[in-house]
Amino acid sequence: MNRHVINPADKAKLTAELRAMGRKAREAARVLGRMPAGQKAQALRSAARAVRVAEAAILEANALDCAEAAAEGQNAAFLDRLLLNAQRIEAIAASIEDIAALPDPVGAVTEEWMRPNGLRIARVRTPLGVIGVIFESRPNVTADAGALCLKAGNAVILRTGSGALRSAIAIHAAMVAGLKAEGVPEAAIQLVQVGDREAVGQMLTGLDGAIDVIVPRGGKSLVARVQAEARVPVFAHLDGNNHVYVHAAADLAMAKDVLLNSKLRRTGVCGSAETLLVDGACAATHLAPLVKALLDAGCAVRGDDAVQAVDPRVTPASEADWGTEFLDAIIAAKVVDGLEDAVRHIEQHGSHHTDAIITADAAAAAQFLAEVDSAIVLHNASTQFADGGEFGFGAEIGIATGRMHARGPVGVEQLTSFKYRVVGEGTVRP
Amino acid sequence: MNRHVINPADKAKLTAELRAMGRKAREAARVLGRMPAGQKAQALRSAARAVRVAEAAILEANALDCAEAAAEGQNAAFLDRLLLNAQRIEAIAASIEDIAALPDPVGAVTEEWMRPNGLRIARVRTPLGVIGVIFESRPNVTADAGALCLKAGNAVILRTGSGALRSAIAIHAAMVAGLKAEGVPEAAIQLVQVGDREAVGQMLTGLDGAIDVIVPRGGKSLVARVQAEARVPVFAHLDGNNHVYVHAAADLAMAKDVLLNSKLRRTGVCGSAETLLVDGACAATHLAPLVKALLDAGCAVRGDDAVQAVDPRVTPASEADWGTEFLDAIIAAKVVDGLEDAVRHIEQHGSHHTDAIITADAAAAAQFLAEVDSAIVLHNASTQFADGGEFGFGAEIGIATGRMHARGPVGVEQLTSFKYRVVGEGTVRP
Repeated sequence: MNRHVINPADKAKLTAELRAMGRKAREAARVLGRMPAGQKAQALRSAARAVRVAEAAILEANALDCAEAAAEGQNAAFLDRLLLNAQRIEAIAASIEDIAALPDPVGAVTEEWMRPNGLRIARVRTPLGVIGVIFESRPNVTADAGALCLKAGNAVILRTGSGALRSAIAIHAAMVAGLKAEGVPEAAIQLVQVGDREAVGQMLTGLDGAIDVIVPRGGKSLVARVQAEARVPVFAHLDGNNHVYVHAAADLAMAKDVLLNSKLRRTGVCGSAETLLVDGACAATHLAPLVKALLDAGCAVRGDDAVQAVDPRVTPASEADWGTEFLDAIIAAKVVDGLEDAVRHIEQHGSHHTDAIITADAAAAAQFLAEVDSAIVLHNASTQFADGGEFGFGAEIGIATGRMHARGPVGVEQLTSFKYRVVGEGTVRP
Repeated sequence: MNRHVINPADKAKLTAELRAMGRKAREAARVLGRMPAGQKAQALRSAARAVRVAEAAILEANALDCAEAAAEGQNAAFLDRLLLNAQRIEAIAASIEDIAALPDPVGAVTEEWMRPNGLRIARVRTPLGVIGVIFESRPNVTADAGALCLKAGNAVILRTGSGALRSAIAIHAAMVAGLKAEGVPEAAIQLVQVGDREAVGQMLTGLDGAIDVIVPRGGKSLVARVQAEARVPVFAHLDGNNHVYVHAAADLAMAKDVLLNSKLRRTGVCGSAETLLVDGACAATHLAPLVKALLDAGCAVRGDDAVQAVDPRVTPASEADWGTEFLDAIIAAKVVDGLEDAVRHIEQHGSHHTDAIITADAAAAAQFLAEVDSAIVLHNASTQFADGGEFGFGAEIGIATGRMHARGPVGVEQLTSFKYRVVGEGTVRP
């Protein structure tokens, strides 16, 4: 079956269906925006229970997805992300309960002040409205993204990778049943029930004004499509081409610990380090031990001339390597000429995601943290902390690398907007 | 001269020029993002002095703009907004100095917390990058918008209405000379030096990635064009179709004061009230006095049947009147059936700008403030407080009515983004 071609009649039908989903989402958003915090939390707990109850149906659907993916020759990583079992379904339910337990962001006052004329002004969190989430073939994201958006008072339209569609439909059906039992509108969390990519294009147009923001999660092809086609705001999650810069004043043991953790704790996450920059001023003492530690830990090192000189196992780095998110046990490595050169390299090749400096020099750290234009900048800490949970945000829907609205881990607070509440005593403006 | 048609050769030349402006803006933004607060403030004071020094040249340019506008038959309001004199130039310079004196937002820590593993995480304000401001024929906006963007560490590309282009060029030249004297890059504030509208369309595409956000200021035709064509994020400033809702528990004297101020203090500002909603439960006592007060103050009232019944001077409201931003001494008025009906009317006809409730009932006020989805919601206060200065933000570049990033008065803080700064002690993730 080719899921990516659609005939005109089917396209018209899909358009009508998606627009109807958009209208229903807008109506649901109005209800959710006013829903008491307790009701939302209770409904999410009910959804978690419903997911547990539906375990057999979810596993059955997932088995079909997995069989199809295997038949299509998908790789092991794809199959592992797709596979559900009892333990993973329990993890999905527990994650919904964790989101239910987060503080409700809607109505929270983030700033409050009094004006000389007696007006009290408060900045209050409100929902964003309707969120479109377009994500890869990972069944758990159906639950996480749906629950996070709902917790923030938003309606959501989910579109999963077609490889996980049956699993997503089963999880979604369970969640909606659980939510409905607590009075949440059925359209609070909607799932696009067809696999073809035409739906992505239509969501990116905003469904006639029904979608306020798109959250894309996926590989380079989705990101490129979103950048070309999106007509609504996007919380883009780009590459994590992250750097560890070992400054002249770095403690070698600390640099080694942080570097190995940044690169190798998990290589497939967006917070993993992809490039090592070692300052020329400490290269004589630090470069060889750091490179050997990486190689000995099983990491391939692609280096410039100076890095190649310290170990024969180092292979030459190509120009493209500086811009590559390997997501594997591979690192590009280079000697830089001081802090400004490091910042310049990151500016030229980085993706504004997560970058770290290792140094004992507070002034150098402050300069790096100020000048590197990334969502997350770290001093003496692993890039693998780029994670909403590690930030204390609870679950996250991704790491935003743009500069508008949300940046860094997108948790429940980043899925809100705000309004100004002004209270007077019959106050008029002179 | 028809400024709105452009031949292909000129279009290609304009495209090349605008893209070059975009690249220069991006370079300037890098420098501005790292510029010390003191240098930015000093440079803005220098720009203010330069505007004062250039008074004669600015007045000369403005005289040409005014003569052309008069010859074109522009109306009195247009001519008044366009006209400069010594006093208005002094006000422009003083406004730049006020912006210079604001607290510098870049680097400000808006939240800071410690994680159990010892990581210290701070959310720190950063510049947005490059801002495109498209505005009407008001010379003072050249200075205000330029200074506000620069204060927040952003480069800006300004595009003024063609009617004010000569005045804007003169003000801009003076500002840039003043800024340059303090080491600010020439491209920190750039002005599109041609009047044709093709430049607007190109700015809305983002100039090949050079513009991060567009701030449009202008009438319905600009807003419509921005909505149709923008490929970059927009801080939209839509209509201010604002409501005053007189609740059943409103004090009549207070309601009268706030209503008259909301409607008539200045009718041409975006915060002026355009619709009066009176609760049916107090209509018997409140409706007639409120309507008569408006009429006696010289305000035309267009009402539903109930409103027409209280005074023969009331004319019938058309359906379109509920959605109209009159910006004049005209108000639409209607009796509503309780708070929920008022909220529903505002949701249906409002523009998410500024809406007020007058009531002595705290619970009713809380419900209105929570449920009305507008950038600014007021209790017992005039809608004319919808203004960055009245909020204590200093100057503003407009009132944003969207829900993404900026909402309400867009002052210097709203022109920033943020990053997370994470400090450890060699901290690694388990």
